[in-house]
Amino acid sequence: MYIYPNFLKLRNKITSLFNIKYPLIQAGMVWVSGYKLAAAVSNAGGLGIIGAGSMYPDILLEHIQKCKKATNKPFAINVPLFYPDLDDIMQIIVNQKVKIVFTSAGNPRLWTKFLQENGITVVHVVSSVKFALKSQDAGVDAIVAEGFEAGGHNGREETTTFTLIPMVADQIKIPLIAAGGIATGKGMLAAMILGADAVQIGSRFVASKESSAHINFKNEVVKAKDGDTVLTLKELIPARLLKNKFFNEIEALYSQNATAAQLKKHLGRARAKKGMFLGDLDNGELEIGQIAGLINQIKPATEIVTEIITDYNNALKQFSVLKL
Amino acid sequence: MYIYPNFLKLRNKITSLFNIKYPLIQAGMVWVSGYKLAAAVSNAGGLGIIGAGSMYPDILLEHIQKCKKATNKPFAINVPLFYPDLDDIMQIIVNQKVKIVFTSAGNPRLWTKFLQENGITVVHVVSSVKFALKSQDAGVDAIVAEGFEAGGHNGREETTTFTLIPMVADQIKIPLIAAGGIATGKGMLAAMILGADAVQIGSRFVASKESSAHINFKNEVVKAKDGDTVLTLKELIPARLLKNKFFNEIEALYSQNATAAQLKKHLGRARAKKGMFLGDLDNGELEIGQIAGLINQIKPATEIVTEIITDYNNALKQFSVLKL
Repeated sequence: MYIYPNFLKLRNKITSLFNIKYPLIQAGMVWVSGYKLAAAVSNAGGLGIIGAGSMYPDILLEHIQKCKKATNKPFAINVPLFYPDLDDIMQIIVNQKVKIVFTSAGNPRLWTKFLQENGITVVHVVSSVKFALKSQDAGVDAIVAEGFEAGGHNGREETTTFTLIPMVADQIKIPLIAAGGIATGKGMLAAMILGADAVQIGSRFVASKESSAHINFKNEVVKAKDGDTVLTLKELIPARLLKNKFFNEIEALYSQNATAAQLKKHLGRARAKKGMFLGDLDNGELEIGQIAGLINQIKPATEIVTEIITDYNNALKQFSVLKL
Repeated sequence: MYIYPNFLKLRNKITSLFNIKYPLIQAGMVWVSGYKLAAAVSNAGGLGIIGAGSMYPDILLEHIQKCKKATNKPFAINVPLFYPDLDDIMQIIVNQKVKIVFTSAGNPRLWTKFLQENGITVVHVVSSVKFALKSQDAGVDAIVAEGFEAGGHNGREETTTFTLIPMVADQIKIPLIAAGGIATGKGMLAAMILGADAVQIGSRFVASKESSAHINFKNEVVKAKDGDTVLTLKELIPARLLKNKFFNEIEALYSQNATAAQLKKHLGRARAKKGMFLGDLDNGELEIGQIAGLINQIKPATEIVTEIITDYNNALKQFSVLKL
């Protein structure tokens, strides 16, 4: 028989901050995480996030309204701070009385105070100790620290989840959410042992029934093996992609010593939409994390959440102290 | 009170294979891990490894003989397979009745059978699922899977420890040792939760009293922060280094679109010796892992081992199952 004397500790910093059951957050992802996915994850006891990065303001408004109808649990909006229409987007979020906002890819000083004055809990995404400390100084309520293995936009330092999480945990006082490379309960437990209070999971939810990723893209995620993704376009905004025809073209440009302007021109516009939402596997940008190699099946989000928590518990039960 | 019904499981695959107390291995490292470090780690209950990569055959012989006098516990030799003098080195290992060899950076088919026929347990280091499977097919007794965050020579796939370990664990049947980014008991526990049977720790032991690294280099490791290392020289053999004057020169060559031959010429010979053993922090190559950012003190190896095991136990005790 197991006895867990510290069961109450599970009401941890993050579950208390967001008022959720499990310290498990579904990442806000462009073209992937609309209200259907966010509501499903929130209903399952995690925190679902609507990814505003790929939505015009009126589309975001529609998703927030539908999300409120689909769940009475807390959910959040992810806002990448380098996108246009930020004033409109933030005003919609405030008007709609959204309770939690995750900001990323920008300066946390810009919007934190405004959002908090409107009763919103603010979380900022970083990829280094330096920006974790800057975010804490800016007054955010929690931090997501995202490792090099994460899909999509990524930091330049290339610090991995395994080393980033303990280094950030050592330096900050506010709650810490680990991201990058986490798709299972074992990964969730490992990240929390390294010092995180919760985990943010992206790639695993791309391959969910409720994600708005195109089925072609979901199938590619399921097929992916280790070594199939790469962090590229470091001269623009670094992004981790599945290797495909578009990526090979980027590689060819690199081998010709292309400039940042040439890379940007070839990237063009709407590559991510083309690949992830419209399913053009050749010409689209397919943003996904290294852990795609461990994802083998498209499943409903509720099932994914339950599996992760069950796997977390089973992993924990297999370990015991070492005799000194 | 804690009850651990599966305590006996701690006689795990790796502690049984090597006949050691803790599933904790000190990495064989050029210019750093001579007999003093290896014997100290083995005496402390882990597995110490002499790094043959920076030793002429007669020096290796001397280290093996001294190691046998310094410990009656098992220890191992790491042999990078792209070094010269392999015939001499393997013959010395056999003659000296060394019980365990870790091979790396080469084809595991080359030496595994010869070593095993001489009663030696063979472990091969890989950085991908593909080479883990090839090594298993070659008949090795165990595998080290090393992530992108590891110091020194590294794979081209850039797969991180957090994603590599569960993907390799999913595919192989033989024991698995995790390497890359591990310096603490929390890291050890996290890696084992991800699927490893044991861990191999390098950087933490560079900053040990018994390592033969120059004190200048040890001090740099202690001072290092996140973002201070980078994986470079991918056109030759990729290596993770501390950023210094030598690294800046490499970067300048890259910005001039240098060829592999030009990079090789600038690298020249004995750069690692110059930096790591002779303490030339400007002109030497300083090989270390990302986790250096978490290492803040030079300590005796015995103390490092005890701290890691104590930290492992403390980390485990803080976790409890989540209620479904």
